[in-house]
Amino acid sequence: MKNTGPDREFHVILCSVGRRSYLVRYFREALSGRGKVLATNCVPDAPGMIAADQAFLVPPAYEKGFVERLLDICQQHRPRLLFSLHDLEISVLSRHTEAFKRLGTFPVLASHGFCDTCMDKFATVGFAEEHGLHAGKTYLSVEDARAAIREKIISYPVVLKPRYGFGSIGLCEAHDEREMEMRFDLLRLEIARTTIAMANAKNEKKAILIQEKLRGTEYGLDVINDLRGDFVTCLIERKQGMRSGETDAAEIVEDEKLFALGKKLGEIAQHPGVLDVDVIVQDNIPHVLEMNPRFGGHYPFAHMAGADIPSALIAWAEGRQPEPSWLRAVPGIRCFKDISLIIT
Amino acid sequence: MKNTGPDREFHVILCSVGRRSYLVRYFREALSGRGKVLATNCVPDAPGMIAADQAFLVPPAYEKGFVERLLDICQQHRPRLLFSLHDLEISVLSRHTEAFKRLGTFPVLASHGFCDTCMDKFATVGFAEEHGLHAGKTYLSVEDARAAIREKIISYPVVLKPRYGFGSIGLCEAHDEREMEMRFDLLRLEIARTTIAMANAKNEKKAILIQEKLRGTEYGLDVINDLRGDFVTCLIERKQGMRSGETDAAEIVEDEKLFALGKKLGEIAQHPGVLDVDVIVQDNIPHVLEMNPRFGGHYPFAHMAGADIPSALIAWAEGRQPEPSWLRAVPGIRCFKDISLIIT
Repeated sequence: MKNTGPDREFHVILCSVGRRSYLVRYFREALSGRGKVLATNCVPDAPGMIAADQAFLVPPAYEKGFVERLLDICQQHRPRLLFSLHDLEISVLSRHTEAFKRLGTFPVLASHGFCDTCMDKFATVGFAEEHGLHAGKTYLSVEDARAAIREKIISYPVVLKPRYGFGSIGLCEAHDEREMEMRFDLLRLEIARTTIAMANAKNEKKAILIQEKLRGTEYGLDVINDLRGDFVTCLIERKQGMRSGETDAAEIVEDEKLFALGKKLGEIAQHPGVLDVDVIVQDNIPHVLEMNPRFGGHYPFAHMAGADIPSALIAWAEGRQPEPSWLRAVPGIRCFKDISLIIT
Repeated sequence: MKNTGPDREFHVILCSVGRRSYLVRYFREALSGRGKVLATNCVPDAPGMIAADQAFLVPPAYEKGFVERLLDICQQHRPRLLFSLHDLEISVLSRHTEAFKRLGTFPVLASHGFCDTCMDKFATVGFAEEHGLHAGKTYLSVEDARAAIREKIISYPVVLKPRYGFGSIGLCEAHDEREMEMRFDLLRLEIARTTIAMANAKNEKKAILIQEKLRGTEYGLDVINDLRGDFVTCLIERKQGMRSGETDAAEIVEDEKLFALGKKLGEIAQHPGVLDVDVIVQDNIPHVLEMNPRFGGHYPFAHMAGADIPSALIAWAEGRQPEPSWLRAVPGIRCFKDISLIIT
C-alpha cells in the first residue's frame, strides 16, 4: 500500500478545484515540500487543475461512480486532508465521510444536515431565524410574496433567486407585481433547463425564492473551527465590489457584532475548517444572506492580510498548535482580485 | 510647458482602464522606462488604476466636463498615445480627436462613424451584410422575429440582447413565443433602469435585438492596423470557455478564412491599432457577432503567445518599423485567465 507508515507524506486533495489556483498555491506553501497538492475537477481545463501537483478528472458529483472514483484516488494516494469547493459535491461527500476516514483521509466537511441547510437558501433562512439570527424575509410563491407586500411586511423591489443556486446564477430583481410574476415564471423555465436542475429536482414546485431586498454594507465572514469542530476565530472582510457573484475587492475589519455572529454560527455548525458566510448589515443589524461550508470567495482576502488557515489545518491534523499569527488577518488591509494569464 | 521638446518622454494614457492591469504591464514593459503609463477611470478602486504609474479619476464619458478633464490631463502630461477601453467613452472621444492631436497626443481611435457601428449591434449586423459578410439574422421587434420564425427563416431558441449593451449584460435565450415576449418586455424594463440607458436613449423603442442563435466554435480576432489605419495582420484565438462574457481560455490558431475576414474588416474600418472581433463559425462560415474598436478580452492571449502590439504601436508612433515577432502569435499556445489578489 502506497504512502502509509511513519514516513507517510502529507498530501492534501482539493475536490472541484475549478478556478481556485490560489488555494492550490496556499496549500503548497503550507506543506513546503512535505507532500503534494492533489486536485480533482469534472472538466480538465481549469486553472486549479493546472496549478496542482497531480490533477484527476472525475465525474460530476451527481453522476454514478463519482464517490467510488474519489475513494479510488484516495486509496491510491492517501491524502491526509480532503476539501471540496463545490456545494453539490460537498452535499454528496458529507454522506460518505466514514469511507474516506477508513482510508486515512480526513474529509474536512460539515455534517450532511448542515451542508444541506447551506445548499438550500430557504433552509438557511429558517436556520437563522430558529437560532435568533436575522435573515431577509423570504417566500416560496408569488402568492405569499404578494400577501406580504399587501400587509406591508416587505416592499418592492424584491429579489428572486433559485433556492438551490450557486453564485449569482438567476439572481434578479422585480419592481412591481407584474415583473415579479414574469421573472418567477422565467426563472422556473430556466431552472428546469440548466444544470442546477438536478439539485432542485427534489422540490421542483418550490425551487424559487422571493426575498426582501436588504440594503447595507456587505461582509464576508470566514468562520474558522478546528478539525474537531470547535470554534477558533472569525475573520471579517468588508466587501467593496461584486462581479458575477464573487467578491472583487475587500478590506479586513474588526467588528464585535460580526465576530459574535460568526462565533455563534461556528458553535452551532460545529463544522471542521472554514464556513464562508455572506452577511449584509441593514439598520445596524447583521442579516445572514448565504452560508457555504467550505473555502469561499472571501478567504483569499484574509490570506493576503496574513491569515494562513491551510497551515493551521495541517497543524491540527498533526496534533500541533497553529501559530497564533496564522489565525489573524490584519485590519485595514485592502485587496483586489486581479486577472492574469497562465500558459497551459 | 511640461514634457515637450526633443527629450519628451513617451507616456501612454489608458482611459477607462478598469480591471485591465495586464494592459498597464504590457505597455510598461514596451516602454521599458522611457515613459509612464497613465490611466483614467471613473471609479478609483480598480486593478488597472493601482497598476498605473499615475492614475486620474475622471467623470463618466457621458457626463459634462468629461472631455475637458481628459484634455487637461493630456495638456499637463503630454502622453504620445491615448487608448480607451470603454465603448461608450470611445464613441465620445472619437468626436474630439483633433483637440487631442493639437496637444501632441495621438488618440488611437477609429472614426466616430465606425465606433458607432461597433456600439450598435444592429448596425454591426447591417455593416457585415453590406460588405458581403455573414452575421446572425437579427430583428428589432417581437413581431418581426415571430414572422421570421413563421417563415422558417430562423427557429427557436433565439437570443435576446440589448442593442447597445456591453459584455453579456442582459443576454438571454427564449425557447418559445411566450418566453420571447416575456424576455423582451423584461429586457425593456431593465434597459430603462440600468446605466446603459443613456446609450440606448436615442433609440429607446428599438433598443433590443432578437437574433438567431448561432452554433459553432467561437473565435476572437485581433485585427491590427498601423497608426495610419493600414492593415498589418490578424491574430486569431479559438475560445474555450466563457465567463461573464469574457474569454476564459483560448488557443492561438492559424486559419486562412478567418485571416481573410480580419483583413477585410481592417481594410474597411481603417482603424488605427486594435479592432477586437467576436466570430462564430457555423457550417464552415464565419459569422460576425460583435466588434470592439479597442484592446479587448482576446488580446492578452495573443500577447502571452508572443505578440507585442504595445511595442509595435510605440514603434509606429516613433516612425520605426516594429520587430516582425511583435506581430506574430505562436499557434498552439493555450492560456487561461487566472485570478490573483493584489494589496492596494
